[in-house]
Amino acid sequence: MATAGKVIRCKAAVAWEPNKPLVIEEIEVAPPQANEVRIKIVATGVCHTDLYHLFEGMHKDGFPVVLGHEGAGIVESVGPGVTEFQPGDKVIPLFISQCRECRFCKSPKTNQCVKGWAADRYDVMALEETRLSCKGKKLLQFLGTSTFSEYTVLNQIAVAKIDPAAPLDKVCLLGCGVCTGFGAAVNTAKVEAGSTCAVFGLGAVGLAAVMGCKFAGAKRIIAVDINPEKFEKAKVFGATEFVNPKDHSRPINQVLAEMTDGGVDYSLECVGNVAVMRSALESCVKGWGVSVLVGWTDLHDFAARPIQLIAGRTWKGTLFGG
Amino acid sequence: MATAGKVIRCKAAVAWEPNKPLVIEEIEVAPPQANEVRIKIVATGVCHTDLYHLFEGMHKDGFPVVLGHEGAGIVESVGPGVTEFQPGDKVIPLFISQCRECRFCKSPKTNQCVKGWAADRYDVMALEETRLSCKGKKLLQFLGTSTFSEYTVLNQIAVAKIDPAAPLDKVCLLGCGVCTGFGAAVNTAKVEAGSTCAVFGLGAVGLAAVMGCKFAGAKRIIAVDINPEKFEKAKVFGATEFVNPKDHSRPINQVLAEMTDGGVDYSLECVGNVAVMRSALESCVKGWGVSVLVGWTDLHDFAARPIQLIAGRTWKGTLFGG
Repeated sequence: MATAGKVIRCKAAVAWEPNKPLVIEEIEVAPPQANEVRIKIVATGVCHTDLYHLFEGMHKDGFPVVLGHEGAGIVESVGPGVTEFQPGDKVIPLFISQCRECRFCKSPKTNQCVKGWAADRYDVMALEETRLSCKGKKLLQFLGTSTFSEYTVLNQIAVAKIDPAAPLDKVCLLGCGVCTGFGAAVNTAKVEAGSTCAVFGLGAVGLAAVMGCKFAGAKRIIAVDINPEKFEKAKVFGATEFVNPKDHSRPINQVLAEMTDGGVDYSLECVGNVAVMRSALESCVKGWGVSVLVGWTDLHDFAARPIQLIAGRTWKGTLFGG
Repeated sequence: MATAGKVIRCKAAVAWEPNKPLVIEEIEVAPPQANEVRIKIVATGVCHTDLYHLFEGMHKDGFPVVLGHEGAGIVESVGPGVTEFQPGDKVIPLFISQCRECRFCKSPKTNQCVKGWAADRYDVMALEETRLSCKGKKLLQFLGTSTFSEYTVLNQIAVAKIDPAAPLDKVCLLGCGVCTGFGAAVNTAKVEAGSTCAVFGLGAVGLAAVMGCKFAGAKRIIAVDINPEKFEKAKVFGATEFVNPKDHSRPINQVLAEMTDGGVDYSLECVGNVAVMRSALESCVKGWGVSVLVGWTDLHDFAARPIQLIAGRTWKGTLFGG
């Protein structure tokens, strides 16, 4: 393309500092370097983790930054050494890289990788390097992606090529929410056929978790949310029962224990709230109950009484669906 | 035996109230009722969980009580309906029952049971019913066992028959510590061959955990204790490396991360301290690290940052080795 090898000036929503509105700025996107791909972003979702970083996380070294990590787009140009992508390819940026060579990539147990921001940059939630800048200042790429920009640049190990017929405004959700929720149920909790599940929080991630539970063959899928308007949608995705904690004076784990003769087999926390994480664990049956942290938060400790685990429950977590 | 069907008067160490020394009293042990077995206790260990109940737990309704749950003895008499035991059998009292009929007993995933104190009496750590009394007062049977008595009575579903040649003063440790530690490694953590493990705390449970890790084929077993005198014994059981947190100014998880290129595959907390529980989790490698709560405590919350689990670690617990 005519822009290949040149700096692209385009619009992006820039977060200059925590707790301030995003500002639409003209930014500069450098050409892709070795093994990098420059992508024209066509569609992006907004995820709670974007809001978390802007309004809750306040990682002081994590700004200025271009947020957004749930996008889809088209390859504009590629840097030296890129063999699997070419201009025009439809792609989804990945906030977890897959170098295919490290011990994590080679293990069937995890989707972690030694490369990418997630290797050790939880403090800023971004890679050290960035190809984005504005007014002479480097803009961090949130989770390595920055889909709140018309163009962005990623290492090829953090890009997935998709079907040329895929509708980008829909499949962008595969960039985070759908994979995270679905994978939490299928890969991390490893929901078994015939089991009873509870999904806490019915946003995009929670709905995808409901879908994952159904895919895995769960017999009962209890959808929990304080907003009952979400129940109708959850039913479409496979939820079989619906509980609004506001309808009960007792703790939600007691309500679920009564509904399920002692607790659910699997619970998925899709909110990102440490109190809900505790409730989700306590809602599991002793002996074999598995609870998974799916929602992102890292401001506060999550906690429970040791007996919860000693009695046979398991507490896990998932990043991008494991 | 001559005592069959009669009340037995014998000595026991009675805990009349929290935080007071045990008192050697003459107590009354009622004859076994239906499905019950009366056992002459020959040997007993002392476990941290006994001390916990007496000095730390202070469950106000858990007294007066006869502590002790790590014993071995000989059947003195049996009640109606007992078919698998007869007077003279060598046995180990079990603080986790196995009714063989409930959904927990039928599941390969757990050693929980719907019967026994562990079903729902964590508040008093004892069964509602007891066959022990002193000075007209009922004495609770700690964890359903009460091995700090010359005689005790248990339901047959909480008794294991053992080899008549077994030395009771040694095999009594199978009643808690050995099974708990060994099972934590083998059944709960499911330590894999070639893996790297860390065991926090080198009491009887910790040493048994070391033994379990070795049995499972662990390549490196790092023994962690603030008392370096325990390292020699740990080496006998299979530990390959030794770390005293007091020798380091950095957090122990950082020390272990450097020793192991990012953290251990499995960590076992055999202390019963919520701060150590956190350290043990944080000492695990991201992606697949598994940490198990083995030491008993239920006074305080255990806690960590959500990212610890979201990054792929698993937190489990074990009761009597799972």
